[in-house]
Parts: sequence; structure tokens; C-alpha cells
Amino acid sequence: MAFHFPQKVFFKHCDPAGIVFFPRYFEIINDVNEAFFASLGHPYHEMMPENGVPTAEIATRFAAPSRHGDDLVFTLTVTKVGRSSVGIRTVAHAGDELRLETTLTLVWVNREGRPQSWPDDLRAGLTAHLEGDDP
Amino acid sequence: MAFHFPQKVFFKHCDPAGIVFFPRYFEIINDVNEAFFASLGHPYHEMMPENGVPTAEIATRFAAPSRHGDDLVFTLTVTKVGRSSVGIRTVAHAGDELRLETTLTLVWVNREGRPQSWPDDLRAGLTAHLEGDDP
Amino acid sequence: MAFHFPQKVFFKHCDPAGIVFFPRYFEIINDVNEAFFASLGHPYHEMMPENGVPTAEIATRFAAPSRHGDDLVFTLTVTKVGRSSVGIRTVAHAGDELRLETTLTLVWVNREGRPQSWPDDLRAGLTAHLEGDDP
Amino acid sequence: MAFHFPQKVFFKHCDPAGIVFFPRYFEIINDVNEAFFASLGHPYHEMMPENGVPTAEIATRFAAPSRHGDDLVFTLTVTKVGRSSVGIRTVAHAGDELRLETTLTLVWVNREGRPQSWPDDLRAGLTAHLEGDDP
Repeated sequence: MAFHFPQKVFFKHCDPAGIVFFPRYFEIINDVNEAFFASLGHPYHEMMPENGVPTAEIATRFAAPSRHGDDLVFTLTVTKVGRSSVGIRTVAHAGDELRLETTLTLVWVNREGRPQSWPDDLRAGLTAHLEGDDP
Repeated sequence: MAFHFPQKVFFKHCDPAGIVFFPRYFEIINDVNEAFFASLGHPYHEMMPENGVPTAEIATRFAAPSRHGDDLVFTLTVTKVGRSSVGIRTVAHAGDELRLETTLTLVWVNREGRPQSWPDDLRAGLTAHLEGDDP
Repeated sequence: MAFHFPQKVFFKHCDPAGIVFFPRYFEIINDVNEAFFASLGHPYHEMMPENGVPTAEIATRFAAPSRHGDDLVFTLTVTKVGRSSVGIRTVAHAGDELRLETTLTLVWVNREGRPQSWPDDLRAGLTAHLEGDDP
Repeated sequence: MAFHFPQKVFFKHCDPAGIVFFPRYFEIINDVNEAFFASLGHPYHEMMPENGVPTAEIATRFAAPSRHGDDLVFTLTVTKVGRSSVGIRTVAHAGDELRLETTLTLVWVNREGRPQSWPDDLRAGLTAHLEGDDP
């Protein structure tokens, strides 16, 4: 079950070459993750400061540039649920065209930044978004 | 021959958890690349709009969080010089502690965004920063 | 006739004090203006690069801090339509509480950055949003 | 006694029109303030979270656009020292050309965000930068 997040490319996202400045993509990806966890009943602003989900690693391939005004859709799936981490794959498309593909790992930590086991309901929510679980 | 770029962690870089918000790191990495090309005699503001060096892919591992006030040093080395691309590895340390390691590929493009062969002097400058070329 | 723009406060907007970092408000205000012009049939990505509406001046009072997760509504009204400029007042509320009030001037410019007379339809659209024109 | 802060315009600061995106100026102004307080012996990262200096209001006139590669100098002077607030005027120039002028008010607050009287040494440092106190 994939999670979808639409995002129009605004003026603020774009650089002097008229395309999305790549650090802005990572702000959007953070928004996608924030919205995904909210959809699972754990919005960031409620989990913090007791817990957090910092990004441990992220790898991204920019397949084609995105321009001001483009209507992007980010699609998130879960690739792996660990004891205290989750693997996520997110792709962004404009229509049928792939713009980027990213894989990242988030870790569920406590106030001191130490990894914790996922709460049961959150683990269940993450597991429901594992790739390949829908036809 | 490595290229070094110091960067103090400012208020603007930090998130509600008091650590660097990871998209901010990518803004800094863009600054590092911009300063590196300037050191090679090709500042971004002179090469554009005739040419540019968009980021084709980037993979990053965040080894430890950085906090407001930390004095970071980013160290860039070249891993590979292709016909129109360059592989870069950048690490950031606070003192001896590794904070992040990133590998990225930049592509030398023309005004239309098409890959071009590196100019000779730029290729020479990039090659001079290949890893393992200094003792 | 006021123009309304809802914006939830996301993680990316907030600083180490857990409140909106004030430059992030200006990114949002730019989004509000971009959405407003789109509502008038002139989205920024279509007017550029022939025309643009740079900000000539802006004055803001931050009445109360906004926190992560707050549901803000930005309300824009036009205070004055000049030959090539427009005065805008925007307020942001969380429920009934005022968070900020800003007044700003945008200028309609050509590709060289020189002020131009508003196109007729845009002038009409701006004028329709003058304060005091609705009960 | 004025406080000076040089800032080159980097790629990240610029928008599709090739000039500084105005919210980026406010990030720089925040950097200027942070460096100013550090120069007075109160770096933000040491005062927080016990204290902070949120921006209560800010008014800015953009006199002329700044372009990628411009070497700007921001010059800060103090206009007024109140019991718990400070008025600041900051101008940015590229060579002799004025790019922006901003006036802003910061408030010295405690952990709960309530205004507090300035510590004596900080009041003395601020007072030393009052406009008109140097020839």
C-alpha cells in the first residue's frame, strides 16, 4: 500500500537554472515522511520531544529536472521494517515521467537520540505499507 | 589533494530537536561544491548560464548529529573524473568525530542541460584532487 | 474580497526553540502571493521570465509565536493598486489568535526588472481584492 | 560603532530570476544578528535554551537586487536599547551600492518566552553599538 503526496513546484523551490534546487527536494521528502507518519496516527508534533525519527541515511538519484509549476506526486513505500528502523523508497513523478528516486532509513529514537523498538501500532502501520503487499 | 571547507553550525541550520536539519546539510554541501569549483577558477556565477554542474545523484550517511555551535570541517576529494561527470566524496567532522559521509556525482552540462566534455583546465583541476594522489 | 491560504506548521519551519523560524514565514508569504496571482490567472511560472513581481518592501510584526503542528490561515487583502505596484496586507491566525501581520509592496516588472503598467485583467483582479470592498 | 558582516551571494540564495530570493536575505540577517551577539560574548548556542532573542518586528526595503557572486557587506548599528529589547538597523551594500535597509526589534526572553531585562554586560555591549557614537 503506497502513500501518495502531491507537491506543486513553487518559485521558492527553484534555482537560477529554473529547476528545483536539490536541497529543496529533501525538504519536500521530509514533508512526505511527516505526512506519512501523521497518516499512521503519529504526527511529528505529537511524538516530539519524547520521540523522533531522524534520517540515518539517504540515497537519491535525480532522473530528470523538475521545473517551476510542475505538478509532482511523491509515492512512498516501505522496503523494510527493523526493530527500531524503517527503510523507505520514495519516487517522484510528473505525470509518467520519473523525476527522482530515493531510498532512506529512519530510526525511532527516544529523547536522548537512542534507538527504541517501534510501538506496536506504528510497526503495524509501517508493515502495512511494505512493497509488494498490494497487487 | 583534499579541499577543506569550515562551517560553523548556525541557528538557521537547526531543527526543533536542536540538531542540524538534514536538508540544511545539502545546502552546505552545495556551498562546498561551489567553493571547490571557484578554487579551480570556475565559480558558478561565471560559468552560468552557459554551463552548470547539476547533481545527478547523492548518497549520504549521517554518522552522528551536529549541534548548534559545532565547528564542522567539510573535506572534499574527487573519486572519479569521467568525460562529463565527476565523482566526489565529502566527509564532515567536528574535531575527530565523523558527522557525515556523502558521495555524489556532478555533471558538466550546457545551457540546455546536456552533458559536455570537461574543459581541459577544469579536468586537470578535478584530477589533481583525486583520492590517493597525495601521501 | 480576501484571499485565504491555509498552512500547517511543519517540522521544517521550526527552529531549536520549537517555534517558526521567522525567515520561513517569508517563504510562506511568498507562497501566499504566488497562489494569489495564480488565482488571478497569472501563475508565476507562466508570467516568468517575461515578467515578475519582486518584493520592493515588507514590514512584519510577529504578534505571537507559532508552534509545530499549528494550523495557520493566511489572509491577504490588497491595500492599494498603483500603476505598476500593489500594496498587500497579510495576516496569519491560528484560530482566533493573531500570529503575524505584514504589509508589503510588489512591483510588476519586465525581463530587465523595470516597472511596467499592470495588464488590465490583472489590475482588475487586484482591485477586486481591495480592503473594504466587502461587508 | 558598527558591526560588519561580509556575505558573498551563493547559488543557494538565488531564485529563477537570478537574484537573491528575499526570504534568503532574512536568513542572512539572522546570521548577522547571531554573529553580532557572539561578538558581545553571548553566542546563541550558549544562551539557549535559558534565553533567546526572537525577532518581534522587522521592516525591510530592497533598494536594488543582488546577483549571484556579488560581494555584500552587512553593516549593523543599534538604534535603541530598551529594558528588554533592542532596535537594530542593518544595511547591505555591494561596494557603494545600497541593496537593502532593514530595521528590526529583538527581545531578550527567558525559556518561557517572557521578556527579561538585559544582563548588564550585554546591555553595555549593545549600547556601545548605538548609532552616532562614533565619529
